[in-house]
Amino acid sequence: MRVYNFSAGPAVLPVEVLEKAQRELVCFEDVGMSVMEMSHRSKAYMKIIEEAEAKLRSLMHIPDNYHVLFLQGGASLQFAMAPLNLLVGSKKADFIDTGVWSSKAIKEAKKFGSVNVIASSKADTYSHIPSYSKESFDPEADYFYICQNNTIYGTKFTTLPDTGNVPLVADLSSCIMSEEIDVSKYGIIFAGAQKNLGPAGVTVVIIRNDLVGKASERVPTMLNYQTHVENGSMFNTPPTYAIYMLKLVFEWVESQGGVAALEKKNKEKADLIYDFLDQSKCFKGTAAKEDRSLMNVPFVTGDEALDATFVKAATATGLVNLKGHRSVGGMRASIYNAMPIEGVRALVNFMKDFEAQYGGVGQ
Amino acid sequence: MRVYNFSAGPAVLPVEVLEKAQRELVCFEDVGMSVMEMSHRSKAYMKIIEEAEAKLRSLMHIPDNYHVLFLQGGASLQFAMAPLNLLVGSKKADFIDTGVWSSKAIKEAKKFGSVNVIASSKADTYSHIPSYSKESFDPEADYFYICQNNTIYGTKFTTLPDTGNVPLVADLSSCIMSEEIDVSKYGIIFAGAQKNLGPAGVTVVIIRNDLVGKASERVPTMLNYQTHVENGSMFNTPPTYAIYMLKLVFEWVESQGGVAALEKKNKEKADLIYDFLDQSKCFKGTAAKEDRSLMNVPFVTGDEALDATFVKAATATGLVNLKGHRSVGGMRASIYNAMPIEGVRALVNFMKDFEAQYGGVGQ
Repeated sequence: MRVYNFSAGPAVLPVEVLEKAQRELVCFEDVGMSVMEMSHRSKAYMKIIEEAEAKLRSLMHIPDNYHVLFLQGGASLQFAMAPLNLLVGSKKADFIDTGVWSSKAIKEAKKFGSVNVIASSKADTYSHIPSYSKESFDPEADYFYICQNNTIYGTKFTTLPDTGNVPLVADLSSCIMSEEIDVSKYGIIFAGAQKNLGPAGVTVVIIRNDLVGKASERVPTMLNYQTHVENGSMFNTPPTYAIYMLKLVFEWVESQGGVAALEKKNKEKADLIYDFLDQSKCFKGTAAKEDRSLMNVPFVTGDEALDATFVKAATATGLVNLKGHRSVGGMRASIYNAMPIEGVRALVNFMKDFEAQYGGVGQ
Repeated sequence: MRVYNFSAGPAVLPVEVLEKAQRELVCFEDVGMSVMEMSHRSKAYMKIIEEAEAKLRSLMHIPDNYHVLFLQGGASLQFAMAPLNLLVGSKKADFIDTGVWSSKAIKEAKKFGSVNVIASSKADTYSHIPSYSKESFDPEADYFYICQNNTIYGTKFTTLPDTGNVPLVADLSSCIMSEEIDVSKYGIIFAGAQKNLGPAGVTVVIIRNDLVGKASERVPTMLNYQTHVENGSMFNTPPTYAIYMLKLVFEWVESQGGVAALEKKNKEKADLIYDFLDQSKCFKGTAAKEDRSLMNVPFVTGDEALDATFVKAATATGLVNLKGHRSVGGMRASIYNAMPIEGVRALVNFMKDFEAQYGGVGQ
C-alpha cells in the first residue's frame, strides 16, 4: 500500500507516472530493451530526450532565445557553474540570502569573484524574505542571484527583484512548474529534478542565449554551459533514465491541464493547510504569511516533545516524512505537484484529530 | 520480445535485474513508495546505498584504505576532477594516449598543469596499446593516467604500467568488474556506470585515502573529492535510483559467482568471437591480438557497403547496435557482463551465415 509522502525531496511522484514506468521498464515500446539500456544516440532515445525538451518548453512557455539543458550535479553544481560562466565582467554579483541554499551559492561564488549580499533574513531563522532596496543593487553586477522558493523555511519570492539589465539567476529547485512564471524575466533558471520534475540525478537548466560562451578557457569543460549547448546535453552520456522520467512527468502535467491548472490545485492544497494552521490552537506555521511557499509548509506545536509525538503518530497512519529539516526542527509538509489533494486532506484531518486529543498543550 | 543489445553504452543490463526493478518500481518492499521517491537521508534509502557500497567493496576486494564514492558527471567530469585534485605538487602528469577518451582526459588536464604524453598509438588509429619505456616516466609526476579499456578500438592494457610511487589514475568505465583486478595498484579508479554497472547517471570513484584533501580552496566544492568523502557521497542529493540499480546489479554479480566467475564467462564469450574472426574469410578484427579487449570487439569486412548490409541484416534478426563508433566505422560488438553467451552465439552464427551468403567479398 502506498503512503502519503511529504518528503522535501526526493519526493512523491505521480502514481500514474510510476505505473507507466513500471510497465515499460523491461521492454520499452517495440524497441526490445529497457530505456536504461538504450544508447543515448539511438533514434529511440533521441526521440525521448527531444520530446522531454519540447514538452518542457511548451509547459513553461520558454522563449526561443533560451536553451534548455539536462545536466548532472544538482543545484550544488550550478552554484559553481553560474559564477564560473557569468563572473567575467565586473566579477561582482548581488545575492539575497534567504537560507541554507542561497548561503551555499554565496559561499561558492566567493571562490570566483566578489559577492554583495543585498539583504538577509538569517537573524530571523530565514522565516521571511528580507526586504531590500533597489538602490542597493549594483548596476555593474554580472548577475543577481535568488533562491526563489526556500524548501527548509517554507518561504518564496512572491515578486521578483527588478534587476534591470543585470541577469537574474534563480534556483527554482523546489518550485519549478508549481505555478506559471515569466521565463523572460530570468537570465538562468536551474532546478534539481527531485522535487517537482522527476527522480534525483538530473538538473534542468534554462539559460538565455547571450549568457552562453562567456566562460574562460580554464573553466572545466563540463562546467562550461557552452559545452552542453553545443552538444544538445550530449557532450557526455546524459542521465538517460532520469530524463525519460521527466518526459513521463511532463506528460502527466499536460494531462492535468498544464502548469496553470496545477497552480490552481497547488493553491487549494496550500490553503487547506494554511487555513487550518491560522485557526489552530495546537499548531502554527513558521513562515511569514506574506512570503508563504506553495510547496513547503513548516509548522510547529511549540513543544519539541509534542512535535516528535505528532511525527511518530502521523507516520503510523501512513503520513510520512513530516519531520522538519534538522536545522529548524518541527514539522514540514512538502506538497509538490504530485501530492494529491486527498493526501493534504488526510493530513489536515489527522492534525485536527491530534489537536482534539492533545489540545493546546504546545501553545 | 527482447533483442540482443550490443551497444557500447548505455548497454545491456541483466534481465533479472530489470525484472526485479520492475516489481519494486511503484512500491519498494514495505516502504509504501518507489525508491525514486525516497528521501536520500531516510533509513530505507541509507540501507540501499550502504549495501551498494558494501557489495562493491566485497566484489572488487577494495582495501580499507580506499574510499568509494557515487558521483555524477561521468568519466568526463573525472577528467577535470583528477587533475584539479592531484596536480598540486610538481603540477606534472604522465599520460598514455590510447584513444578519444584518453585524449579528452589529456586535453582537460592541460587546463590545470603540465601534461607529458609518454606514448600514443594515434598514428595507427589506436588499434593497439603503444609500447613505452619505463625510463620515460617522470618520477616527479603528480599522477600517471591510463584509460584501461578502450571502448571504441577494442583494446585494453593487459599489464599495468609500473609507476612506482606515482599514483596510477585509471578510467575503467568499460571494463570495471569484467575481470579481477588488484585495486591496491591504483591511486584512483573511476567508471561511468552505464557499461558494466548500471544505468547512466552515476560514476563510481575508488580513491586511495592519501589522495583526498589535496585540492586548493579555489576548486569548485563539488569537484573536490574531499567534499564527497566527508559526506559519504551525500553532500548533495545523489542519483538515488541509479545507485539502487547498481545495488541490484551487484547482487546479480554475486549470484553469478562474483567477478572471477564473470571473468571466466567473459573470456569464453570473447573467445567465441575472436576465434571466429581469426579464421573468417569475410570478417576481421581490427585490434592488435595481444591487446584485445574482453568487452568490445570491433571488426570489419573491409568493404563499407558490406558493413552496412551486415549491420542492417543483423538488426532485422534482433542483433542490434552493432554499428562501429562513428570515428572508426565498421562494426563493434560490446559484450559486457550482462550479455549472455547465447547472445554471442547468436551473433557468431549470424556472422557464419552472412559469410556463407556473401563469401569473402570484402577481403
